[in-house]
Amino acid sequence: MKNKFFLKELNKYQKKIEKEINSFFELKEKEFSNYSIESKQLIQEMKKYSLRPGKRIRPILVLIGFKAIKGKINLKTIKAACTLELLQSYLLIHDDIMDESITRRGKIAFHKIYEQKMIKNKLINPKRFGESTGIIAGDLMHSLAVEILLTSGFNEKILINAVNKLMQINKLTAVGQQLDLILESKTIFSEKDILKVQEFKTAKYTIEGPLLLGAILAGANKKQLKQLSNYAIPIGIAFQIQDDVLGVFGSKKTGKSIASDLIEGKKTLLILKTFEKDSKKHLNDLKFVLGNKKATKNQLEKARKAIIESNALNYSQNLAEKLSIKSINELNKSKFNKKVKQFLTEMNSFLISRMH
Amino acid sequence: MKNKFFLKELNKYQKKIEKEINSFFELKEKEFSNYSIESKQLIQEMKKYSLRPGKRIRPILVLIGFKAIKGKINLKTIKAACTLELLQSYLLIHDDIMDESITRRGKIAFHKIYEQKMIKNKLINPKRFGESTGIIAGDLMHSLAVEILLTSGFNEKILINAVNKLMQINKLTAVGQQLDLILESKTIFSEKDILKVQEFKTAKYTIEGPLLLGAILAGANKKQLKQLSNYAIPIGIAFQIQDDVLGVFGSKKTGKSIASDLIEGKKTLLILKTFEKDSKKHLNDLKFVLGNKKATKNQLEKARKAIIESNALNYSQNLAEKLSIKSINELNKSKFNKKVKQFLTEMNSFLISRMH
Repeated sequence: MKNKFFLKELNKYQKKIEKEINSFFELKEKEFSNYSIESKQLIQEMKKYSLRPGKRIRPILVLIGFKAIKGKINLKTIKAACTLELLQSYLLIHDDIMDESITRRGKIAFHKIYEQKMIKNKLINPKRFGESTGIIAGDLMHSLAVEILLTSGFNEKILINAVNKLMQINKLTAVGQQLDLILESKTIFSEKDILKVQEFKTAKYTIEGPLLLGAILAGANKKQLKQLSNYAIPIGIAFQIQDDVLGVFGSKKTGKSIASDLIEGKKTLLILKTFEKDSKKHLNDLKFVLGNKKATKNQLEKARKAIIESNALNYSQNLAEKLSIKSINELNKSKFNKKVKQFLTEMNSFLISRMH
Repeated sequence: MKNKFFLKELNKYQKKIEKEINSFFELKEKEFSNYSIESKQLIQEMKKYSLRPGKRIRPILVLIGFKAIKGKINLKTIKAACTLELLQSYLLIHDDIMDESITRRGKIAFHKIYEQKMIKNKLINPKRFGESTGIIAGDLMHSLAVEILLTSGFNEKILINAVNKLMQINKLTAVGQQLDLILESKTIFSEKDILKVQEFKTAKYTIEGPLLLGAILAGANKKQLKQLSNYAIPIGIAFQIQDDVLGVFGSKKTGKSIASDLIEGKKTLLILKTFEKDSKKHLNDLKFVLGNKKATKNQLEKARKAIIESNALNYSQNLAEKLSIKSINELNKSKFNKKVKQFLTEMNSFLISRMH
């Protein structure tokens, strides 16, 4: 298997990250039990939520960014890296409220936990209660993300730079989310619109931000930061394009349900390119299923055929491939150590080949 | 007028605070115009929202906390103090979503701005779009609150302490909000429940947190921080009790509409004490109007009479008075400079005497 080293490293670090998240929340449980029973329970739910199974890709990329500069990581770095897992928890809690999602990581969405707790209470609106508790829990998790970073043990100068970076990551993710929300409301949209959302919501948030945060913790210079960005942005966009392909054509490996993006009416490069190039017949086949929760298997199959025959699938996959190669070329120009390069090279191929 | 010095100082600092908030957002406008037109527009709305007329009591208390330790404030302190006005903006935006409020500071609530922008667009649910944009804008404002503090110009050690304090303020406010949400859902509640919400949501958030943040920026020692807390907590709770009185009996000065808390069914000390002590007839008069938007003037008058005759009004006002005196006694034990003591003494009387 060609991604063996990447997967082994991922597995090794996941456990370390989860251990530190667990320890942090144990301290918080003690702190919050001083406030009230309900506050303690909220923290316990937030802990369980943050420890639901996940790839921990963002904190692990913090470690890799650190290793790229300093060669070796230490406990301080693992603690600091957890900040991005808590940031992710807070964003997921708020996202699921915005999207009215009911599940997350195989269990119910955070706000739904509190909705269900109130369902028998006639005094209040359980949906509103659940969403309100979710908004509060997300805001609280946002603070805890900063706190876990501040208590990691780095010196003050590095911490200030790191908090600044964390706030920038949060800011740019908000920019991406707003653009995505607007994209959903548009009937006419361009490739530029789509790629911008992918750059902010995926490339910057999931790949570049974490690597740079790790590098900043290691005291990287501007040139080193630039090299990491040059690797991160193209592969980040390529990953999102590939993810959108999986959202229509499915994947046995990830268990992503076939055609889910079609039914949700998600505006992806695949859809745009089909709209741009397709014949009238194919266009109608696609339009029929977009955002249509009642579309049949046969109708979805026709839509997929339209995407293939219009060359939109090819276009998307070629673009992803091109961006992936660009990313590797940039990485090869750098002088990062061998193991970091191996990890990032294998991750690159892993991120765009999840279909096969 | 016995609060003349307090009001004069308030007025003087309000302008300075607003000037710095304005400058900060001008920089952000430039930054966000690099991302997209929509991001720039979002920042512009956030700027206008943050600059809507307000007392700016929290940032001003940061200045007073600083002065208590160092005697004089400087531009750095004014910049850093703005963090609490942005924190307030973010919390108000999220609060209004949770409470489904439609107005704020004399204009429409933040999420309603975006709901209205989408009202003609049939592709999406305008209410959901407005609330989603509000959640994102609040999250973004949260980051900007940290950013304005980090760019204030203080040294790294002080900044780390200050960011820690800011996160603690945010954390304890979330605790208070959750407890308030739960209080709303309870049929049986105690004086302790109510006072705890008042401590976290008002005393800590509005009075203690700001004073301590200012003192931390000035490098205060533990004893000094404790003295400020001893002043802040009792007057903070007293202020909230008095505010709840105004919510039922109204105030010409603040323009708070008479009986608004009754119609909203807000669970205050007044209500609890009436329930505890009142005769059956009076109890029914009160129960009838609680949370009843259709209650007539006459019915509201009867409920107010029940609150007075059950002695609940007296009880609440006496408790507020006692806490206010306790707060002043604590202040007089301290060695803060004369002007700081004068400001805090006048503020104390201002906060609990807004009715007269």
